[in-house]
Amino acid sequence: MTSLSELPIRDDLRGREPYGAPQRHVRVELNVNENTHPIPGDVQADVLARLAEAVAGANRYPDREFVELRSALAAYLGHGLTRDHLWAANGSNEILQQLLQAFGGPGRRALGFAPTYSMYPLLASGTGTEWVAGDRDADYELSAARAADWVRRVQPDVVILCSPNNPTGTPLSLDVIESVYDVAGGIVIVDEAYAEFFPAGEPSALTLLPGRERLVVSRTMSKAFAFAGVRLGYLAADPAIADALRLVRLPYHLSALTQAAALGALAHSGEMLAMVDEIKVQRDRIVDGLSALGYRPYRTWSNFVLFDRVENPREVFDELLAEGIIIREMGIPHSLRVSAGTEAETGEFLAAMARYVERHGRPHTAASEQSPVG
Amino acid sequence: MTSLSELPIRDDLRGREPYGAPQRHVRVELNVNENTHPIPGDVQADVLARLAEAVAGANRYPDREFVELRSALAAYLGHGLTRDHLWAANGSNEILQQLLQAFGGPGRRALGFAPTYSMYPLLASGTGTEWVAGDRDADYELSAARAADWVRRVQPDVVILCSPNNPTGTPLSLDVIESVYDVAGGIVIVDEAYAEFFPAGEPSALTLLPGRERLVVSRTMSKAFAFAGVRLGYLAADPAIADALRLVRLPYHLSALTQAAALGALAHSGEMLAMVDEIKVQRDRIVDGLSALGYRPYRTWSNFVLFDRVENPREVFDELLAEGIIIREMGIPHSLRVSAGTEAETGEFLAAMARYVERHGRPHTAASEQSPVG
Repeated sequence: MTSLSELPIRDDLRGREPYGAPQRHVRVELNVNENTHPIPGDVQADVLARLAEAVAGANRYPDREFVELRSALAAYLGHGLTRDHLWAANGSNEILQQLLQAFGGPGRRALGFAPTYSMYPLLASGTGTEWVAGDRDADYELSAARAADWVRRVQPDVVILCSPNNPTGTPLSLDVIESVYDVAGGIVIVDEAYAEFFPAGEPSALTLLPGRERLVVSRTMSKAFAFAGVRLGYLAADPAIADALRLVRLPYHLSALTQAAALGALAHSGEMLAMVDEIKVQRDRIVDGLSALGYRPYRTWSNFVLFDRVENPREVFDELLAEGIIIREMGIPHSLRVSAGTEAETGEFLAAMARYVERHGRPHTAASEQSPVG
Repeated sequence: MTSLSELPIRDDLRGREPYGAPQRHVRVELNVNENTHPIPGDVQADVLARLAEAVAGANRYPDREFVELRSALAAYLGHGLTRDHLWAANGSNEILQQLLQAFGGPGRRALGFAPTYSMYPLLASGTGTEWVAGDRDADYELSAARAADWVRRVQPDVVILCSPNNPTGTPLSLDVIESVYDVAGGIVIVDEAYAEFFPAGEPSALTLLPGRERLVVSRTMSKAFAFAGVRLGYLAADPAIADALRLVRLPYHLSALTQAAALGALAHSGEMLAMVDEIKVQRDRIVDGLSALGYRPYRTWSNFVLFDRVENPREVFDELLAEGIIIREMGIPHSLRVSAGTEAETGEFLAAMARYVERHGRPHTAASEQSPVG
């Protein structure tokens, strides 16, 4: 049996562990911010009809330019975008990887604001890009002044702003993006994976695209479209950005199945977004329910909630798991993250948390805390 | 309108053109080595049934370890392989990219033998790996002595042996692989994308895997399984190789749709391989037909034929295209490449070539030629 260390692997990979949230299957899975609602039956039927056509032609390579899909994504986003502004890949991780290949890479530097999405440093490493972790203000918020100051000091080739931030859920206001863009010489990526969960009426970074050719807004169909299994990430930006990615993308990187399935779901965006509204209701219910139990949820614009004042996160995790409910430890002290599920799943989670508090007592306010969230 | 050159793209990408065979849709498409036979109806039905299940669960992330698919691929390959020896990705291009990320990269070097698959240098560049192009013997064959000599001189971290070679079709004998492996310190990849088109009874590099922990055999479902649209490449190697790739792969890189569709096709491998036998008959018919017209086809173990003695490749290409038949100019002097199609498509191609010869005369034997292929 050969061990990995006996292979001539790159030095910077030696001793590393692969990324991976545990894939455990239990009754109530609220650990990886999936949309726990299955795709509605009529949408499934439409997706399948398109897949049948794709399978009939699967002996041929797919449309390398996925023209129809880019048009449908542009129509979904609105804001006067056309297919020339759109690009897509197998999940937003691949979008970010391609951006780092084109604009980062050896001798270049990417900046993000920790704690943030744990894949960013891994994607930087995988593309030979140096990763610099800036920090955040109180309660994991990020102010324009702090962000711009980091950019001035680090002079990054790529800035990644996560809006709302994962794993904290905290929103990012547009003035932060504007300030960062103004002082940055490189590409500014706003990762809006959870943008559909913004409060109604809050503007997307898409509104900032005109006149900003180095600004990229990335999205995914994994969350709002309940399509985590399909792997479809995309971006909107100046058409020159897509031209850059054509130099690094693998030819035919988007399968005919992926293109067909995404088109099917996009044809039902109204129905899918109604599901999003229901998830936002459950998210707010989690915020209220946890606050009532004495926990301290952070401000969230996503489909999940990070909450503080957990004295023993591992104990809470284990006791919930014993009841068939899985949530997520993110390595943030005294904190746990939970995804908003269906009404029933959310109820089960809150009831289990109430039983935990009954068994172990209400959480204490930590001395270090500044101001609880409303 | 911003141009690509105004963006802060990496210097090594400046002025480059994206890879891309033209995607033109005509009556007879024999230009990109696709399997021109659609997937049989019963196989399509099975694939679709599995896709329906995948769509029903598409709101969840796919199995990151694609355990069932790795088992099915191992069973298909045989040779005592188990799922631990298998790994898969979105096309064999992504397999090679992951291998280069783990074992190549900045400061490292990859060696291939030109003319060979044009994606190899692009994949090397995309991963910051230096690409060294070795050469070949007469008639694009590759001998153990020449290959091993290149390895000794270049000391590559990764060697890519294309078996049979694309775009020449020429086979690679196992003693070349053994010799290269013995003198190489790095990873040796044998790209067997077209292995199912080997003459009956010819052994695969899979037979060399036991005891060679740095040897990797890559395959694809694009050709033999008529699955170019689905994008499923895979490899067999020591289990430590898959462990290395787990450090660089994007999490959930294989969609639930890809996994389901591949499982469906693998359940019908007997039927799919019968189609391969029919394609081999057409390939041999192309070799015989072109020889009879005075052209000089190279030895081929794939689903395509490269043929020499074409005085004006562009003219042949254009005149065939005018008849609704597309083949491929590979930039190899006096040569064109054609994929074996269905019986009807192959007949159309040969008839069009006969008409071309009638109009322009039989090809001349070039002075530089050594020995025609039997």
